[in-house]
Amino acid sequence: MYCLLKFASLFLAVSVCHGWLFGDFVGKQKDLDEISLWPQPQKFQSSAVAFKLSPVRFQIVHAKESSAGPNCSLLENAFRRYFEYMFGDMKKHEKSRKKVFDSDLVELKVWVTSADPECDGYPSLQTDESYELSVDGPSAVLKAANVWGALRGLETFSQLVYEDDYGVNNINKTVISDFPRFAHRGILLDSSRHFLPLKVILANLEAMAMNKFNVFHWHIVDDQSFPYMSRTFPELSQKGAFHPFTHVYTPSDVKMVIEFARMRGIRVIPEFDTPGHTQSWGNGITNLLTPCFSGSKPSGTFGPVNPILNSSYEFMAQFFKEISAVFPDAYIHLGGDEVDFNCWKSNPDVGKFMEQQGFGTDYSKLESFYIQRLLDIVAATNKGYMVWQEVFDNGVKLKDDTVVEVWIGNKMEEELQNVTGAGFTTILSAPWYLDYISYGQDWQKYYKVEPLNFPGTDAQKKLVIGGEACLWGEYVDATNLTPRLWPRASAVAERLWSDKSVTDISNAYNRLVQHRCRMVKRGIPAEPLFVGHCRHEYKGL
Amino acid sequence: MYCLLKFASLFLAVSVCHGWLFGDFVGKQKDLDEISLWPQPQKFQSSAVAFKLSPVRFQIVHAKESSAGPNCSLLENAFRRYFEYMFGDMKKHEKSRKKVFDSDLVELKVWVTSADPECDGYPSLQTDESYELSVDGPSAVLKAANVWGALRGLETFSQLVYEDDYGVNNINKTVISDFPRFAHRGILLDSSRHFLPLKVILANLEAMAMNKFNVFHWHIVDDQSFPYMSRTFPELSQKGAFHPFTHVYTPSDVKMVIEFARMRGIRVIPEFDTPGHTQSWGNGITNLLTPCFSGSKPSGTFGPVNPILNSSYEFMAQFFKEISAVFPDAYIHLGGDEVDFNCWKSNPDVGKFMEQQGFGTDYSKLESFYIQRLLDIVAATNKGYMVWQEVFDNGVKLKDDTVVEVWIGNKMEEELQNVTGAGFTTILSAPWYLDYISYGQDWQKYYKVEPLNFPGTDAQKKLVIGGEACLWGEYVDATNLTPRLWPRASAVAERLWSDKSVTDISNAYNRLVQHRCRMVKRGIPAEPLFVGHCRHEYKGL
Repeated sequence: MYCLLKFASLFLAVSVCHGWLFGDFVGKQKDLDEISLWPQPQKFQSSAVAFKLSPVRFQIVHAKESSAGPNCSLLENAFRRYFEYMFGDMKKHEKSRKKVFDSDLVELKVWVTSADPECDGYPSLQTDESYELSVDGPSAVLKAANVWGALRGLETFSQLVYEDDYGVNNINKTVISDFPRFAHRGILLDSSRHFLPLKVILANLEAMAMNKFNVFHWHIVDDQSFPYMSRTFPELSQKGAFHPFTHVYTPSDVKMVIEFARMRGIRVIPEFDTPGHTQSWGNGITNLLTPCFSGSKPSGTFGPVNPILNSSYEFMAQFFKEISAVFPDAYIHLGGDEVDFNCWKSNPDVGKFMEQQGFGTDYSKLESFYIQRLLDIVAATNKGYMVWQEVFDNGVKLKDDTVVEVWIGNKMEEELQNVTGAGFTTILSAPWYLDYISYGQDWQKYYKVEPLNFPGTDAQKKLVIGGEACLWGEYVDATNLTPRLWPRASAVAERLWSDKSVTDISNAYNRLVQHRCRMVKRGIPAEPLFVGHCRHEYKGL
Repeated sequence: MYCLLKFASLFLAVSVCHGWLFGDFVGKQKDLDEISLWPQPQKFQSSAVAFKLSPVRFQIVHAKESSAGPNCSLLENAFRRYFEYMFGDMKKHEKSRKKVFDSDLVELKVWVTSADPECDGYPSLQTDESYELSVDGPSAVLKAANVWGALRGLETFSQLVYEDDYGVNNINKTVISDFPRFAHRGILLDSSRHFLPLKVILANLEAMAMNKFNVFHWHIVDDQSFPYMSRTFPELSQKGAFHPFTHVYTPSDVKMVIEFARMRGIRVIPEFDTPGHTQSWGNGITNLLTPCFSGSKPSGTFGPVNPILNSSYEFMAQFFKEISAVFPDAYIHLGGDEVDFNCWKSNPDVGKFMEQQGFGTDYSKLESFYIQRLLDIVAATNKGYMVWQEVFDNGVKLKDDTVVEVWIGNKMEEELQNVTGAGFTTILSAPWYLDYISYGQDWQKYYKVEPLNFPGTDAQKKLVIGGEACLWGEYVDATNLTPRLWPRASAVAERLWSDKSVTDISNAYNRLVQHRCRMVKRGIPAEPLFVGHCRHEYKGL
């Protein structure tokens, strides 16, 4: 029962025959049980007409018209990766490739349309991730402006493939036109509270790509440890890491993370949070932190970065010069959250400085003084910066392209209103602190968040460029991070990618159960949503 | 600075020189940072005198006086296991064994004192798990009545071994006399809500042994699936498992679990919960479950086991005859919790039966009627039984040796009072439902429970024979079970093994951090308690 369709244009498709399904699966779950796209594409049509994919014959190839070709290693790698996701260990036998059946889908042609496919580039905040996918025997076509959109489309294509009762891969006749609702869709991992071995980070980058996340916010250092190995200041990790050899990220480790992420269309934004959250910095750099006083004497403990010494700013200038060279992304996250004033208050030199500057007893002015100088230092490296909301709240003068991250749950809507009202772009993480675990299906809580649900003009709403799911590191390390993050973060992935109208929880549940099993099949130990089983259970321990 | 000691008897040791530490570490944590016994032994003395253990020379051997010898495969296996825990991959070189240094500990002699070492037996509720351990160069001696106490002592010995700054294994001069406070120390795993692959069960049996747990309460089937492959009724798993081949425990799987547990001194108590929690049984056995009615017609759904048909009891007799043969433990858990009366109420035949029996409208009488017959059936197989508290609450007549499991958190103390007041032995699981997760260090909540903290006579307190940490399966499977269980269950392990007085949380924290790292080093992905790191981090994903 093949269904013929004529399209005026591929993506202004009009359904003219019975059997097409549009966007929403509700009520038709049974019919297309196998199809479990996550996140839900913007425009989606599928029919019950199915084609078979043979590991012997099926290929992913560059379209003739594509600006990308075999020397585009990013795509070549992606072709292999998705072939393996779909067929696993099944071997290709070149010999029998000629024999093609009518019901076969024999190829996916990937057509990159821009003159520059960006094979060797990096994704950015401005990247166009849209793609168009048409599946119809004997060929499917994936069209995108650049490799980044092609990556998203490859993921979707692979999600359309399902096993029938014989274990044969099938795909239904489908047309998809897709693009993200928000440009910044991030995951924050924290490698300071616990060290995260490289392979844990890489596994989670893989899982991110399966969920169309495109930013790895790497909260790489903090009070507890400094695992980033700096070429300029090697003593930072030598004395600040949990262990100077086994618990550090070498320059080549960092490169590998960045390249592994790039291959999946993921930006790596490192966070070097100052002036608070810097205890571990103080181990390697003398005089960087403020000495705290007990009465008239130094207590032997230290507070935030010392904002009254020129040496602090000289250090930061050198340090961020290195960071801006090591990390290719246009943005660096500079932190700026939770600065504790007690140590500054105890220190008589800081007191004098406050007086000289006319700050009175308002230590937030001192904080702003530090941050302002830091921002100017980083701006001079030609990087943009992201900051936690306190920096904005304290009235620091920010560059126009600053991204303010709203993380405090209390009065979140008011903060979004204020930040966007002041004309700054913002991302939301307040509702998505995934380190706060609880019994049951908390993914639903994350899923129900509507990021634009705050009072503001259309112009203000446009300044919300995305959000982040944050898994802070107090209680996670290599033993439990991955199953705790997935599929809970998948709820955030769909909220940030799919249309605002995609809010049906029971439909989402059905798709997410299968998406979770797909991640498991691909080797990611994503935890179960609820009772049940996967066709292919987790094979690790 | 060797410290000479003369003992009147090995275990009536008197400290005659400086440097001995007794039981409690508090305030001396720094001195013996390396020693992190978990659970804390009953009597413990250690000095700063250290001996080195060389993988080339050190051996675990049978003492000459021991009733167990090289043909005791349980101990031979345990010797190898603990050698590997201590030395990992380090190879032994037979050649150089002769060269012994004064500061070496060259052997641990294991001395089983009973005429029957029980090498081929099974542990039981009556098993004596006590042991005495004396470490002093050049030999250590571990003395126990039987292999079960020897296993506990081997675990303790291996925990005494620590790496010095060179990575060399050291052990301090130590005397320990130890025994469990409670005889029943269990872990409940649920293989019905999610199927648990064999290797997940085995890994958790390993972790249980590291924590001196001695009962694996295997909640093997439930509403959601029936993975137990029955020889008598193969259709139970054929139609009741998530998948009849990939999601079942074959007879040889079950044997392997039992043997793997036995080798570690762990009893396997299977739970076949009836008459509720039996939806999956109904798939394979026609007429076993009560047909529910909607008005005057069967609704097509089914309720608990049908208590009014003789065929139900005939089935149970045959089924439990098999179970009693397959599982060697003296106890079977018969469940009996959470019976929903709605279906029985809807069924007109059940109504007639109630009338005939003079039960009025009290369906708990019908429940008791069923349970009473089931208990008699199981008693006829010469097995003892455990039941959930409802069975006792409903006034069912129980055998004297019945173990009643108290699981309802509300009025837990009252229930313990009532059950023991009626003369029944009881175990506590109410405060230890580890499936209820929350943010932060919830192990402390589990640790602070005092099982005997209820009003009752000494005789009543003696009837509390232990407890169980329960990890119900709604939200866990192979992807996340192990890190979610450990080290949270370790808190329960110490509560059930160590003396009542061992309650210092900060001391427990310090030891548990290290115990957790030890589990990680041994390959168990036990999650972190809080920020920090392990010397040997988890090598899996």
